[in-house]
Amino acid sequence: MQLLKDKIKNEGVITEDNILMVDGFLNHKIDTNFINQLADEFIAQFDTTNINKILTIETSGIVIAYAVASKLGVPFVFAKKSLNVNITNDLYSTKIVSHTHFREFDVLVSKKCIDPCDNVLIIDDFLANGSALQGLLNICKQAKCNVNGIGIVIEKTFLAGSELIREQGYDVKSLVKIEEINYAKNLIKFA
Amino acid sequence: MQLLKDKIKNEGVITEDNILMVDGFLNHKIDTNFINQLADEFIAQFDTTNINKILTIETSGIVIAYAVASKLGVPFVFAKKSLNVNITNDLYSTKIVSHTHFREFDVLVSKKCIDPCDNVLIIDDFLANGSALQGLLNICKQAKCNVNGIGIVIEKTFLAGSELIREQGYDVKSLVKIEEINYAKNLIKFA
Repeated sequence: MQLLKDKIKNEGVITEDNILMVDGFLNHKIDTNFINQLADEFIAQFDTTNINKILTIETSGIVIAYAVASKLGVPFVFAKKSLNVNITNDLYSTKIVSHTHFREFDVLVSKKCIDPCDNVLIIDDFLANGSALQGLLNICKQAKCNVNGIGIVIEKTFLAGSELIREQGYDVKSLVKIEEINYAKNLIKFA
Repeated sequence: MQLLKDKIKNEGVITEDNILMVDGFLNHKIDTNFINQLADEFIAQFDTTNINKILTIETSGIVIAYAVASKLGVPFVFAKKSLNVNITNDLYSTKIVSHTHFREFDVLVSKKCIDPCDNVLIIDDFLANGSALQGLLNICKQAKCNVNGIGIVIEKTFLAGSELIREQGYDVKSLVKIEEINYAKNLIKFA
């Protein structure tokens, strides 16, 4: 998606540890007109006929998930991350390791929020090591719902996540793929 | 707003410690069609002519803030909460105490995201003790921006927050006001 590549080139910031920051339009200050265009692109790329629910994980997935769900007129669910929680019978739960925080989190979804008959489209902002996404997929397995597809705004193909998830047979579509981020070279190389 | 009262009566859950849970439509699973109606109501209640930015705080404020910002075609900013962070020169920061988590958080907004010329509408899901909202107002004072109004989905008038904020002269509008929540009586009393 050229529009997104241009936005990343113009407004993305590379930190010294080679992390791409998109705080100016996606993760802190949100350019709503732009996000709505990303949502349109997801809807164009997937067959959304049967999708009845969008699933994402807090925090930054909420924005793009809401935009897609709102345009489709369906509800969305954001999985909650927690450091210390009593797992109870009314929750689906799994553990993930955050790539950016180097910590283990519990990921939680109320059993009231996903049903076995649901046709879910998973939406998230980044796919890096795939831990958060694998967590959402584990939740979907527990709930026995259908995962119709996975839509990612920015995929980092130089990390293991995307291959791991695609090997499991899931339909992963990313609006842009990045194969190298390099602070020293001031380089964002798109795949 | 009768629609919201009905939704709370039909789908809200009171916990044993008298907390109103709205996980079924506002805070975990999100009824996007309903949220869009709440956004329309905020836009009807405020003079939005000059509003050029929406401000909220993660996590659950993001949904309703996005809906309002998207309809107005303006960007929104969500303040980030953090337990341990190095406060740097490029951040506005303040401390808040979470009413539900009994913990102190740093609230952070990048200086790049708010400008002195901004006319801000603050939007949040709940107003209880007002700590989160006071944090956002402190950030706005640091940024020297205009706070044109404060829109709250659910105000708990039996807690100190709403009076504290209104005493400072801010225009606070809430879609519903609740004056009592009582688990034992299974009561949600609207003001």
